[in-house]
Amino acid sequence: MTHNFGAGPCILPQEVFKQASQAVLEFNGTGLSILEISHRTPEFEQVVDETIRLIKELMNVPEGYSVVLLQGGASMQFSMVPMNLLADGQTASYLDTGVWASKALKEAKIVGNVNIVASSKEANYTYIPKDFTIPADSAYFHYTSNNTIYGTELFETPHTEVPVVCDMSSDIMSRVVNVADFSLIYAGAQKNIGPAGLTVVIVKDSILGKSGRKLGSMLDYQVQIEGGSMYNTPPVFAIYVAMLNLRWLKSKGGIADIERENLAKAEALYKEIDRNPLFKGTCNVEDRSRMNICFVMENPELEKPFLKFAEDREIIGIKGHRSVGGFRASMYNALPITSVHALIDAMQDFEEKHRN
Amino acid sequence: MTHNFGAGPCILPQEVFKQASQAVLEFNGTGLSILEISHRTPEFEQVVDETIRLIKELMNVPEGYSVVLLQGGASMQFSMVPMNLLADGQTASYLDTGVWASKALKEAKIVGNVNIVASSKEANYTYIPKDFTIPADSAYFHYTSNNTIYGTELFETPHTEVPVVCDMSSDIMSRVVNVADFSLIYAGAQKNIGPAGLTVVIVKDSILGKSGRKLGSMLDYQVQIEGGSMYNTPPVFAIYVAMLNLRWLKSKGGIADIERENLAKAEALYKEIDRNPLFKGTCNVEDRSRMNICFVMENPELEKPFLKFAEDREIIGIKGHRSVGGFRASMYNALPITSVHALIDAMQDFEEKHRN
Repeated sequence: MTHNFGAGPCILPQEVFKQASQAVLEFNGTGLSILEISHRTPEFEQVVDETIRLIKELMNVPEGYSVVLLQGGASMQFSMVPMNLLADGQTASYLDTGVWASKALKEAKIVGNVNIVASSKEANYTYIPKDFTIPADSAYFHYTSNNTIYGTELFETPHTEVPVVCDMSSDIMSRVVNVADFSLIYAGAQKNIGPAGLTVVIVKDSILGKSGRKLGSMLDYQVQIEGGSMYNTPPVFAIYVAMLNLRWLKSKGGIADIERENLAKAEALYKEIDRNPLFKGTCNVEDRSRMNICFVMENPELEKPFLKFAEDREIIGIKGHRSVGGFRASMYNALPITSVHALIDAMQDFEEKHRN
Repeated sequence: MTHNFGAGPCILPQEVFKQASQAVLEFNGTGLSILEISHRTPEFEQVVDETIRLIKELMNVPEGYSVVLLQGGASMQFSMVPMNLLADGQTASYLDTGVWASKALKEAKIVGNVNIVASSKEANYTYIPKDFTIPADSAYFHYTSNNTIYGTELFETPHTEVPVVCDMSSDIMSRVVNVADFSLIYAGAQKNIGPAGLTVVIVKDSILGKSGRKLGSMLDYQVQIEGGSMYNTPPVFAIYVAMLNLRWLKSKGGIADIERENLAKAEALYKEIDRNPLFKGTCNVEDRSRMNICFVMENPELEKPFLKFAEDREIIGIKGHRSVGGFRASMYNALPITSVHALIDAMQDFEEKHRN
């Protein structure tokens, strides 16, 4: 059995793969592949409806919020957020906690004024800045809840009167959040929602229509909401697989239950990293991510041998991002705890082997 | 056997469905589903490379052009084209041949000045305007080569010194075109290229970088080209299926060969429409599309019964668009001629039944 610790696109449940594979041959008794059905068929309209309904139900999205299914990934949201929310002359505040946060604010600067409230760049983003002030006249405050590359996560939503916008791409649906704390949440689907090629946006309706900017239809949240996520042809298969995955999450008991599992998985691996004399974590302990666990070896020369040692046990995707080095074990919702144990066993066996 | 005449997302070859279904279970001997592999693996980078190589080979794309794989469909290109090519103060010329052409020019108007060289709107777009002048100082000339809703197609590229931009969404790769006649070609994949969720852009490199407009990275062709179609996470599965479909097209002999088949399919059905006293075509004969064949009945009261009659024979997707009514038989590359014969047989049997 392969243990897929890849950072994304990433592991999804095996039963989702089986159902998706079947639907590519025949979808829902239609006699047609999911790849050849019209998005305007009642059968597919039901898929879109159920996907949006499951997102609302699982995340407990309150009244007054819309959920839209888009394309282009979080990177497209880096532009769409300021285009839709940042009026001429206004300033948006950004927290810089990593490469993706930094890209988001760079794109916002193309649209308008940006204020960086804090940055941990000088420490290679190994911690989440805590002491910062969000100016009360900011159009919005933007942050990244989980930093995939560095393995840090911001668990407590910053308190502010300013509308909060959050890139939750890599920890959405991994733990309970209070959607009402946010004005806009966005996420590329390819971690805990579904496959690559789909983007989810959850937006408070009352913040829209205020930028005074005339936008192209595809870039305008209001147009996409009114189009019911089908202003134009949507990414049919990606939405279908997301629906299957959200059904699986619901069958597992929902986000509170998966959060307990994710916590257990993360605690087990961090415990081993802290115990095993060969390994050490790379981040500030209180900011450690549950989704992406970064660690290096005390002796860097052992990193290549350990990577090989792990791969021989079908543990894959643990090579760290080049900007951190070492290892990164991504442990999204669908990664079973048995895979975490396989990695821990490998670390212990490698320790044993190198004791002498 | 189901005969899928749907307008898109549409039929793809059965062998593509089989291969795609298998890859959802296991991709290329990796032990992983195509849905869980990283886009940065060598295996997937090869998929992107082969997809781009096949597009270049099949369409005989000359030197000096780039092929990029994007998201957002043709509708996103309606905005990206003027954002990238239309400088402040310049005017772009558009030919209005249908709803999609009209949407394209509406989006361009949000970005800059638009000149409509001709329109057949007053005749419900039943013909392609021929006598029009493209002002020599236009930033570019935009047209839609095939009008999916109305069943018209523009076979001869308009002669002009102005850069030509073409939305080929619904007839790309159905017939040979000379790419050198164009400065930019774009197409949503979901007709002849692959499944929904992928957009192909073929652009002459020398026309880029002249608009003076500072664009968000995702909206900038140059950034996407430099990113090798992977500036951010691409729609992995849609690209993979497109590659399989392009391989199939190549194995069929390429575009010249499929064009002969498409011509034979279209001629057979138009011949029956013109012969059968119950039916009549809706478009100007010389502008008739090979991809989307629109027809109505002399007696509109027979349309519902014929639709039912056809559906009983597993002929699906032939209901006409609401703005034209009657029927639309979409006959993309993957639709076998046996399906066309099944439709013709149904028309003849229905005629027989209603003779008395």
